[in-house]
Amino acid sequence: DKDLYSDDDIAGMVTGLAWTQVGGEILMIESSLSRGKGVLTLSGQLGEVMKESAITALSYLKAHAEELAIDYRIFSCYDLHVHVPAGAVPKDGPSAGITMLTSMASIYTQRKVRPFLAMTGEITLRGKVLPVGGIKEKILAANRAGVKEIILCSKNRKDVEEINMTYIKDLSFHYVDNVDQVLEIALLPHKVSKPMHFILPEEREVEKAAY
Amino acid sequence: DKDLYSDDDIAGMVTGLAWTQVGGEILMIESSLSRGKGVLTLSGQLGEVMKESAITALSYLKAHAEELAIDYRIFSCYDLHVHVPAGAVPKDGPSAGITMLTSMASIYTQRKVRPFLAMTGEITLRGKVLPVGGIKEKILAANRAGVKEIILCSKNRKDVEEINMTYIKDLSFHYVDNVDQVLEIALLPHKVSKPMHFILPEEREVEKAAY
Amino acid sequence: DKDLYSDDDIAGMVTGLAWTQVGGEILMIESSLSRGKGVLTLSGQLGEVMKESAITALSYLKAHAEELAIDYRIFSCYDLHVHVPAGAVPKDGPSAGITMLTSMASIYTQRKVRPFLAMTGEITLRGKVLPVGGIKEKILAANRAGVKEIILCSKNRKDVEEINMTYIKDLSFHYVDNVDQVLEIALLPHKVSKPMHFILPEEREVEKAAY
Amino acid sequence: DKDLYSDDDIAGMVTGLAWTQVGGEILMIESSLSRGKGVLTLSGQLGEVMKESAITALSYLKAHAEELAIDYRIFSCYDLHVHVPAGAVPKDGPSAGITMLTSMASIYTQRKVRPFLAMTGEITLRGKVLPVGGIKEKILAANRAGVKEIILCSKNRKDVEEINMTYIKDLSFHYVDNVDQVLEIALLPHKVSKPMHFILPEEREVEKAAY
Amino acid sequence: DKDLYSDDDIAGMVTGLAWTQVGGEILMIESSLSRGKGVLTLSGQLGEVMKESAITALSYLKAHAEELAIDYRIFSCYDLHVHVPAGAVPKDGPSAGITMLTSMASIYTQRKVRPFLAMTGEITLRGKVLPVGGIKEKILAANRAGVKEIILCSKNRKDVEEINMTYIKDLSFHYVDNVDQVLEIALLPHKVSKPMHFILPEEREVEKAAY
Amino acid sequence: DKDLYSDDDIAGMVTGLAWTQVGGEILMIESSLSRGKGVLTLSGQLGEVMKESAITALSYLKAHAEELAIDYRIFSCYDLHVHVPAGAVPKDGPSAGITMLTSMASIYTQRKVRPFLAMTGEITLRGKVLPVGGIKEKILAANRAGVKEIILCSKNRKDVEEINMTYIKDLSFHYVDNVDQVLEIALLPHKVSKPMHFILPEEREVEKAAY
Ligand SMILES: [Ca+2]
Ligand SMILES: [Ca+2]
Ligand SMILES: [Ca+2]
Ligand SMILES: [Ca+2]
Ligand SMILES: [Ca+2]
Ligand SMILES: [Ca+2]
Ligand SMILES: [Ca+2]
Ligand SMILES: [Ca+2]
Ligand SMILES: [Ca+2]
Ligand SMILES: [Ca+2]
Ligand SMILES: [Ca+2]
Ligand SMILES: [Ca+2]
Repeated sequence: DKDLYSDDDIAGMVTGLAWTQVGGEILMIESSLSRGKGVLTLSGQLGEVMKESAITALSYLKAHAEELAIDYRIFSCYDLHVHVPAGAVPKDGPSAGITMLTSMASIYTQRKVRPFLAMTGEITLRGKVLPVGGIKEKILAANRAGVKEIILCSKNRKDVEEINMTYIKDLSFHYVDNVDQVLEIALLPHKVSKPMHFILPEEREVEKAAY
Repeated sequence: DKDLYSDDDIAGMVTGLAWTQVGGEILMIESSLSRGKGVLTLSGQLGEVMKESAITALSYLKAHAEELAIDYRIFSCYDLHVHVPAGAVPKDGPSAGITMLTSMASIYTQRKVRPFLAMTGEITLRGKVLPVGGIKEKILAANRAGVKEIILCSKNRKDVEEINMTYIKDLSFHYVDNVDQVLEIALLPHKVSKPMHFILPEEREVEKAAY
Repeated sequence: DKDLYSDDDIAGMVTGLAWTQVGGEILMIESSLSRGKGVLTLSGQLGEVMKESAITALSYLKAHAEELAIDYRIFSCYDLHVHVPAGAVPKDGPSAGITMLTSMASIYTQRKVRPFLAMTGEITLRGKVLPVGGIKEKILAANRAGVKEIILCSKNRKDVEEINMTYIKDLSFHYVDNVDQVLEIALLPHKVSKPMHFILPEEREVEKAAY
Repeated sequence: DKDLYSDDDIAGMVTGLAWTQVGGEILMIESSLSRGKGVLTLSGQLGEVMKESAITALSYLKAHAEELAIDYRIFSCYDLHVHVPAGAVPKDGPSAGITMLTSMASIYTQRKVRPFLAMTGEITLRGKVLPVGGIKEKILAANRAGVKEIILCSKNRKDVEEINMTYIKDLSFHYVDNVDQVLEIALLPHKVSKPMHFILPEEREVEKAAY
Repeated sequence: DKDLYSDDDIAGMVTGLAWTQVGGEILMIESSLSRGKGVLTLSGQLGEVMKESAITALSYLKAHAEELAIDYRIFSCYDLHVHVPAGAVPKDGPSAGITMLTSMASIYTQRKVRPFLAMTGEITLRGKVLPVGGIKEKILAANRAGVKEIILCSKNRKDVEEINMTYIKDLSFHYVDNVDQVLEIALLPHKVSKPMHFILPEEREVEKAAY
Repeated sequence: DKDLYSDDDIAGMVTGLAWTQVGGEILMIESSLSRGKGVLTLSGQLGEVMKESAITALSYLKAHAEELAIDYRIFSCYDLHVHVPAGAVPKDGPSAGITMLTSMASIYTQRKVRPFLAMTGEITLRGKVLPVGGIKEKILAANRAGVKEIILCSKNRKDVEEINMTYIKDLSFHYVDNVDQVLEIALLPHKVSKPMHFILPEEREVEKAAY
């Protein structure tokens, strides 16, 4: 699928992996920013757990903005919309956590997402990556879709090792334990070719460190 | 139907195509702006998926306002209402996505909509157009209603080629992959004859580009 | 019913026509304004479709305020309440659209409503009037209640022509296609005898036309 | 019941009449104001129709504040709470409309409510009083409770005339058609002995009459 | 239970009496204030009627702040939280009304609550105390818990007189008709040993009495 | 589990103990702060009682900020997010109360949490710790997970004494009655190695103690 190729060159678009009753499938996560007041909009018929994953990802990003060189004022001056096509298919579960985090990190930093990459894993508020289910079906779906690299929780390594390697000889795996590792792999150091230029108000209030 | 003719000359009115259990039918999407605070109102008994399509369309438009020469201040100084008559008929699904996007783009730019045109297709947040179902029924309905041109996702071309051409010899088709192509076809370069004049506050806060 | 006579001389009171399982009946729509922040309140056990009609009517009015000589500041400085007695009877459907529009136009302009007039028809956001059902029952109810003139969508003319004329010889009909025609018939040129005097803040922000 | 006597001397307490499956009963409506932002709170397990009656009563009062010599600034500087004891008994229906209106009018004007008075009737937004059901049961309950005068809609006169006069020889009836008549009867010209002194901000914004 | 003793010396903690299917039991009501904007939070799995009691109690307190020497600015500068342990047990009914009122009055005035005291009774908005059910079970529970004094509505006196006096010879009863009497008994004249010091903004807006 | 070790050195992460139908298990509570307006977000499929526990914990902390040397301005200038992985598992009950309180106290003070510590107990608004159920199952789960110390309500001591000591010889217990004792045990005196530096606005409004 052409979406997995770098010539798309759009920030905020990341490939996740979902597990459905008819097998695994890839799932695109899209993020977009527009001037506003910091409102978060989620769409694509997302279930409650998946919405909580998105909120958790955003909290993580806000609490670690400095490390990622994100100006904290963007969070209150821009609205964030995260959409997961296809818009009529209900989606749920915690496994899109790291995909959502990566999509948000890309849109706020305007850094490119590594092409041909997919990922699946739950995140926690302090940045741990937790293992998820349906690994075999997800990996086969990624392979069919042309994915070359996959990020998984290191606790999912045993699930990969149970798969017949002839099916997945073209795939390489990254096993991670925390969000830092995810972003180091998933975000390229350079920005997309036409990055957004954020318009931010000057600091007007005199501020001091409290302690 | 006279609604499909240009002498209506009203911004924000676009013809979509819906697929119901009794066949296809045309669906008018209407947008209107009035001075306010950027509130979005949706009416016409729209289902949850169709509402998400509208929200996604608006996010796309806000994130690409500059390319369409829309002053970003309109989004926070005017309220947008999107209505789909007939008001008592429940409507749902993602296929009105590009129609809603076009309706909104027309009302914000005050550009005329190409007459005798209809369209159907899901949109994504980054501007891709996705294929939708019920193509045959929708096209026959468009033909009956006097439509001359139809915009479809290029992945729906195969659905059109299965239709007996004698039924649709008066129709021409535009196959698209992204929203840019939709708007290039659907919006005429000139404005409606009596365009709205937007009243906007002066930029008061000193602003700078953050990076 | 005395409510249909002009000596009531109250802005915002308009007679609609409803269609219930026990036949047709007249329906009074009342609007009232009080100083506030532009909040819309709807009461009288209105269903979802009827509420959407009211919201659509208000959007139309806001977008066409200038043509009706309504100061746009009223919309944000006064609260609007639309009530439909009797308060315990559930009501729904789109057919009160033009009645609600007329009631709101009367209260915002303080113009008198033509006496002995009733109306029924759906409105759209761009001001079209759409046909509605139950015409025969509604007209007989209007006749019983002492109504002299009725406004209908021109597409409902055929429903009137099926009625035995001996029943409705005292009624005259206005067939319309858009909201402009409704208001031209329904609103008298002069105001009610004791019109409200709107208190509005001075324009404080320097404004300019954006394009 | 001592509540019906004037020595209570509290503004905002008015006796209504309810109709339940076990007969009629009296219903106290209490209103209270406290400094705030114009929030309306309703309590006492009120149903949806009864809540709409309260909202309609408040809209009427706001729109007719001047006639009742109520400073319009009170509505936005004080919060209004309307409570109907006993707090655990569900109550509904439109017949408390005039009672709620009277309670609110008393608390905003601080005028005393006529003692030994009860009332029942629906209100409309423009101030009409509509007839209600259960008149016989309500009147017998009022009589048992020591009520001396009752306000009813004039269209309920026929219901009173069907009651055996020996039961109600101590009661006198006021038949009304609109809210003005209700308030003229129910509110005494003088204030309660310890009226609230409203603290209101000075008019700061320069205002003008728009037309 | 040690909670009933004065050495706890915490404002806002008051003992109520509840009636459950397995008999009566005591119920602690806790209130706490923290700097904020006047938000009311209720917790402890409270039912709708019990929440309305709390809201009614707060309205009463706001409307009678002056009499209780409560600075009205506290209501808008501090958030109030009322909690009823145990947090997992659903609780409902109007009988905690006077207990909630006393808890709030104590926290706002920082006055100590009389030790070994319990109470039960519904409140109304104008400060009447109404009788409640389950008196026998409640009193036996209070006795078991070491309560020494109980406040009841005077209309509940007959329920007490039906109890065998040998069971309750250590209890003394206070019969009241209104909230003033409740607070006079329940609140000691002095404050808790470490009272909160409220931080309040200076009056900035010039104010005048309206009439 | 490595999460219980101090080398994690992250503020706001505390180990609780839950009781499920398949036995006891440990539960991580995570808190995070980011610049905002004082909004509280809860995630992890928490039930209503567990959410009320979190709200109660936050109210306690706000009311006792001074004692814990927390600048009260943080509460309104930072948003708090409390998350309980795994995100798809529903969780409920009051027993996480002291764990949540400790997690919040740690994140607001940036003090380290004692390693190898777990806890379970309900909190009340005035800081009492109440006993909870499932003690045996919870303790066995803690033991399996490598916990060394456990905080319990002193009223749960009897539940511990019923457990065969050979199973829990490596565990030491802290029995507490109030929140002060919990925090004294659970929070180390020093901060985490990279504490947040809170950015707070200067006090701008002149303030005075009211009484
Ligand atoms: Ca879509
Ligand atoms: Ca995924
Ligand atoms: Ca409509
Ligand atoms: Ca369509
Ligand atoms: Ca009513
Ligand atoms: Ca009608
Ligand atoms: Ca009544
Ligand atoms: Ca109550
Ligand atoms: Ca609790
Ligand atoms: Ca109680
Ligand atoms: Ca998660
Ligand atoms: Ca726990």
